[in-house]
Amino acid sequence: MTIFPAVQDIDGCFTAPGDGMLRCTGVGDLDLENGETLPSVTLAYETWGRLNKNASNAVLIQHALTGSSHVSRGDSSEDGWWEELVGPGRTIDTDRYFVVATNILGGCYGSTGPSSPAPDGDPWGSRFPAVTVRDSVYAEARLADALGIDRWHAVAGGSLGGARALEWAATYPERVANCLVVASTAASTAEQIGYAQAQIAAIRMDPHFRNGDYYGAAPPVQGLGLARRIAHITYRSEPELQHRFGRQPQPGESPFTHGPSRHRGRYQVESYLDHHAAKLTSRFDANSYLVLTELLMSHDVGRNRGGISPALAACTASFVVAPVDSDRLYFPQQSYDLAAALPGPVQLHTIQAAEGHDGFLTSVSQLDGILRTGMFDAGPSATAYADPS
Amino acid sequence: MTIFPAVQDIDGCFTAPGDGMLRCTGVGDLDLENGETLPSVTLAYETWGRLNKNASNAVLIQHALTGSSHVSRGDSSEDGWWEELVGPGRTIDTDRYFVVATNILGGCYGSTGPSSPAPDGDPWGSRFPAVTVRDSVYAEARLADALGIDRWHAVAGGSLGGARALEWAATYPERVANCLVVASTAASTAEQIGYAQAQIAAIRMDPHFRNGDYYGAAPPVQGLGLARRIAHITYRSEPELQHRFGRQPQPGESPFTHGPSRHRGRYQVESYLDHHAAKLTSRFDANSYLVLTELLMSHDVGRNRGGISPALAACTASFVVAPVDSDRLYFPQQSYDLAAALPGPVQLHTIQAAEGHDGFLTSVSQLDGILRTGMFDAGPSATAYADPS
Repeated sequence: MTIFPAVQDIDGCFTAPGDGMLRCTGVGDLDLENGETLPSVTLAYETWGRLNKNASNAVLIQHALTGSSHVSRGDSSEDGWWEELVGPGRTIDTDRYFVVATNILGGCYGSTGPSSPAPDGDPWGSRFPAVTVRDSVYAEARLADALGIDRWHAVAGGSLGGARALEWAATYPERVANCLVVASTAASTAEQIGYAQAQIAAIRMDPHFRNGDYYGAAPPVQGLGLARRIAHITYRSEPELQHRFGRQPQPGESPFTHGPSRHRGRYQVESYLDHHAAKLTSRFDANSYLVLTELLMSHDVGRNRGGISPALAACTASFVVAPVDSDRLYFPQQSYDLAAALPGPVQLHTIQAAEGHDGFLTSVSQLDGILRTGMFDAGPSATAYADPS
Repeated sequence: MTIFPAVQDIDGCFTAPGDGMLRCTGVGDLDLENGETLPSVTLAYETWGRLNKNASNAVLIQHALTGSSHVSRGDSSEDGWWEELVGPGRTIDTDRYFVVATNILGGCYGSTGPSSPAPDGDPWGSRFPAVTVRDSVYAEARLADALGIDRWHAVAGGSLGGARALEWAATYPERVANCLVVASTAASTAEQIGYAQAQIAAIRMDPHFRNGDYYGAAPPVQGLGLARRIAHITYRSEPELQHRFGRQPQPGESPFTHGPSRHRGRYQVESYLDHHAAKLTSRFDANSYLVLTELLMSHDVGRNRGGISPALAACTASFVVAPVDSDRLYFPQQSYDLAAALPGPVQLHTIQAAEGHDGFLTSVSQLDGILRTGMFDAGPSATAYADPS
C-alpha cells in the first residue's frame, strides 16, 4: 500500500491490478456543505472480488480516522485493518461480494486532501476547505456511479467509518440495502468535540505546523504525536491500561530522576503512548489529521434534516448496530439510542472487549455470527450468491 | 489572596492577621525522595479558628492540583474552594476546630516552587527538582511541628488533596486520628499517568516554555491552556457535557466556516474549554503545573513500603472514603479498593453528582451527614469541643 505523499497519478486509475491494490479516480468538482467548491477531486480506493451482473453484491467498507482503504490483504503483501472480517471465505466473503473501500476525502492515502496539489500546483495546506462526513459521502456516491453500483448490498464501518456508513444510509436510502455501524454514533457529542479540540490545538501549537503550510519543511511531528496520545487514551479502557502497565517504570528508566532540562524517566504507559505517537507520525499527515478531526466533529446525521430522529426515520436499510461494552469514547448508550431511533429492522449486538473503543478493530469477529445469519448470509438463497458475475 | 509570583517575605511569617489570610514559614532544607536536597523550603498556609490547649482540635485541609490554601473565606474578601464544608458553624466548624491549609510544595501560591528564587537569586525554573506527594507531606510535618500540632484531629482532601491526606495517614499514622479521602486513589493509575503525560507534553511543546526558564518573558500560555483543556474534560462527565452543550455552535460562530489560517468558528463546548483554559493560565504557573502533575503521577502510597496493602495496613486513622459516582478520572472502584484495604474503621460514602470528578468540589456537602455524626461530631462529647482553647 502506498502511503502519503498521496498517489496523484490520475492516469493510473484502474490500472493497478488485483485485490487490495490502491487505485484512484477523479470524481470532478465537489460542492461542499459550507458553500465552497473543491475542484478536481480524486478518490483513492481498493476493491476485492468481482461485481456481479446486476451489481447487487457490492459492499462498501469505511475506514476510521487514520485508517486507509486497505481493509484486507488481497493480492498485496500487507494485512488489512479488518482482515478477520473481510477476505475469501470470511464473513464478508470476497469470493461472493465485490468489496470496495475508499480513502476518505481529506485523507492522506490517495484521495484529495490538504497534502494534494491545489490548482496552482502547490499543496493545499492551510487553504484546504472544511469538509464534512456528508461531503465525503457525496464524493463516494460519484465513485459508486463510476463503478456502476446503484445500490450497495451493504455499507459498513467502525468509529468514524460507522459515521460514514450511517451518513450513506441517511443521504441515499435507496442506495443502501444494509448498514453496519460499529462503535459509532448518530452525531458527535460534546465530549467527542472537546477531545477533538484538544487534538487540533496540539497540532496547531507545534512551531513546525506553520498554519498548515509546512510541506517541504519539517512536519509538526510533536503536535501530531500529542494529538495521537490524547486520542489513544480514549481509544482504550482504563482497566486495560491498568492491567497492562499499572505504575511500572519503563525498564532502565527512573520517573523521579531528571536528566538535562528536567526530562525524566518514563512510566511504561508513557513509553506505550510514545510508541503509538511515533507510529502515527511516521505514516500520517498532520493536516489530514486536523481536517478529518474537524470532519468528525461535524458528524451529525440530523443536520439540515430536521434533527436526528427524522433523519434516521428516513433510512430504509436493515441495520446492525454494534457498540463495544468498554468503549468510553463512543459510549454504548449512543449505539442504543441510534438503534432505538432507526425505523426498520435493527439488530443490536454489543461487542464484549476489554480494549475499549479499539474493540471495533480487535474484536470485530464477535459479529461473525450475527452477520453470517443476516446481512452476509452465506446460504444458497443469498442474493449475492444467487447471481454471480 | 495573593497569587503568584509567590509571597517570599519570610520575615512576614505569622504577621498576616486573621482567618483565611496567607502567611508563610520556613521549614528548612528538605531531603527529597529522589536523593536531592531542596534548600530553604518555605510553606505558605492559612488558618481558621484557634488551636486548643492540648492541640487536639487541629484539622489539615489539602487542596487539589491547581488549588490553593484558601479553603474558606475567613477574614478575607474571597470565598474558598471548600466554602460549604469549612467555616463557622459548618461541617468542619472553625468555631471549634483549628483548620490549617497549606499550599503544596512545588506550587505557585506561596510555597517554594519553580517560580521561587533558588539560592542564586534566579527562579528555579528548569532546575526545580522532582518532588513527590510524600516529599510534600514531609515538609508539612515540619509546619505541624512549628504550629505545635503533634497529631491532627483530621486530615482531609479531594483528588490530589485526597492523595495528600492518605499519604499523611500512611507516613505518620500516629499523627492522624481521622482521614477524609474524597475522589482519590491509593496510587495513580496507568490512565491517570497517561493523561498527565499528555498535559506535560502540551506545556513542553509551547515555544514559550523554553524548558521551564521563561520567567521574565512571555509564559507558555497556550501549552498550559491545552493541558487544562485535556484535564478539564476528564474532570467532568460525558452526560453532563452533552446535557449542557450538545453540538450547539457558539452564538455568532460557524464551526464549518474558516477564517484566515483555517481558524473556524467554535462549538459551545470549545468555548467552554477555552474559558477554563484562559481562567487557569491567568492564575497558575506552567512550571508548577508541570511539577505538580509529575508529583501526582508519583502518587503511590505503597512505594518503598512493600506495596499498597502493607502501607494501608499500617494506617491507624479512622477513614471516610468518598468517591463520586460519575467520576471517570478517579473511578469509584479505586475508592472501593482503597476502603477495602484499610484496616481500621472505614466509612464509604459515594457522592451522587452529574459533574464527574469535580463533584468533590461541587457536591461535597453531601458528606455533611456522615461527617457530622462521626469525624466532625458536633455533640457535646466531641474532643475538640470538650477542651476549647
